[in-house]
Amino acid sequence: MEAIKPYKKDFSYSYALGAFPTYELLRKRPEAALGVYLHSACTEREALNALCKQLRIPICDADRSIARVSDKENVYVVGVFRKMEHTLDKRLPHLMLVNPSNMGNLGTILRTCLAMGIHDVALIRPAADVFHPKTVRASMGALFSMRVQYFDSFSEYAAIYQSGARQMFPFMLTGAKQLTVGECPKPECYTLIFGNEASGLPPEYAAYGQSLRIPQSDEVDSLNLTIAVGIGAYLFSEAGKEKKN
Amino acid sequence: MEAIKPYKKDFSYSYALGAFPTYELLRKRPEAALGVYLHSACTEREALNALCKQLRIPICDADRSIARVSDKENVYVVGVFRKMEHTLDKRLPHLMLVNPSNMGNLGTILRTCLAMGIHDVALIRPAADVFHPKTVRASMGALFSMRVQYFDSFSEYAAIYQSGARQMFPFMLTGAKQLTVGECPKPECYTLIFGNEASGLPPEYAAYGQSLRIPQSDEVDSLNLTIAVGIGAYLFSEAGKEKKN
Repeated sequence: MEAIKPYKKDFSYSYALGAFPTYELLRKRPEAALGVYLHSACTEREALNALCKQLRIPICDADRSIARVSDKENVYVVGVFRKMEHTLDKRLPHLMLVNPSNMGNLGTILRTCLAMGIHDVALIRPAADVFHPKTVRASMGALFSMRVQYFDSFSEYAAIYQSGARQMFPFMLTGAKQLTVGECPKPECYTLIFGNEASGLPPEYAAYGQSLRIPQSDEVDSLNLTIAVGIGAYLFSEAGKEKKN
Repeated sequence: MEAIKPYKKDFSYSYALGAFPTYELLRKRPEAALGVYLHSACTEREALNALCKQLRIPICDADRSIARVSDKENVYVVGVFRKMEHTLDKRLPHLMLVNPSNMGNLGTILRTCLAMGIHDVALIRPAADVFHPKTVRASMGALFSMRVQYFDSFSEYAAIYQSGARQMFPFMLTGAKQLTVGECPKPECYTLIFGNEASGLPPEYAAYGQSLRIPQSDEVDSLNLTIAVGIGAYLFSEAGKEKKN
């Protein structure tokens, strides 16, 4: 295998840094795995060798290359993967992020969505790079269990995915309806929409669906984006389960 | 005023980096404010000068000093504050974090608690430094509206704050009761307890109260700590409001 180069956005491949995200890559999306690099201090050597052999994925030692991409942190395993584009599942709930700017947040949000059973994420550009090693690491490899699709605008998304069954819920500080535990909507299918970390959603999103606000004390400016997504996704996921029972 | 030195844990003071957290300091805890440093690029100069004059807090220019403490990010205002110790309010809900290790997480959790109306936070050592500029910045200054107290152990906390009215809820992946929207407990007073980012709560915490688990897909290892706190604090806060109505 070639030596590992520091990641750049225009690469056709990227890196899963660490044993946990690399296992997720190999188990959930082996067709995208291009190779695995091991550090001499790696304690998972035997298990990873066996798995790679079974999957016919090249594996090799590369102490110096790993140091070059791992950015301070102790990383002893690097999984190289081909970037794969997906279309979202039209029948399933979606999360939409409009102009997310922070890769750590984006990764944490992917992990949270997966925990709440949401597998489809729409990103409206400009948006952080979902394939960046920092995003992948913050997602703990959740990326490899999900479908993520970029769009240039809300209307590009809506042209494909808006339908009678799908209801849209923009989350805004000025949302028309308070999202309470007892009154969470229970639609057939839905898209939860969240804005940028600093600026939130542009005002025109209020017209795209039933805007919601999460109750919060006026002692704070707003909730952190990842927390708002966590609360929203949890409530809709639980409301969906209640409906089934 | 003296030149600003890079922060160290044993200082009796620390820094609020940025205009927003500095305003929070001046408005919510002026008795702890020791001074304000302005960068020549600061656009809030007039408002901050007026506020400091009114509060009799020294303010001065310090471009080079600011660069020394601001750690890459664009910071144009630094509020210097004296570290203040607090005891928690015995009658109010508490959040307890056992061995939190990440300062960004700790700050985000403070901000989330404040949004959900929780003003009292107990930290069990070893624990991240709540006064570190990184924590203060991640909290968006929420620290200045809260009481935070460190303890060496759970029993040190319990000896002071355990009472008939207060119920304890350790959040664990092995929690005995699932935390659903419909069945969130509604105690008079409570302490929500969360463990370390990587290892969660030690098993003995299961005996300290009604252990809870947040429902989550088995496709992920666990929720991010900040997200778990966000969901738990939101549900208890909403359940408390429902009870009052």
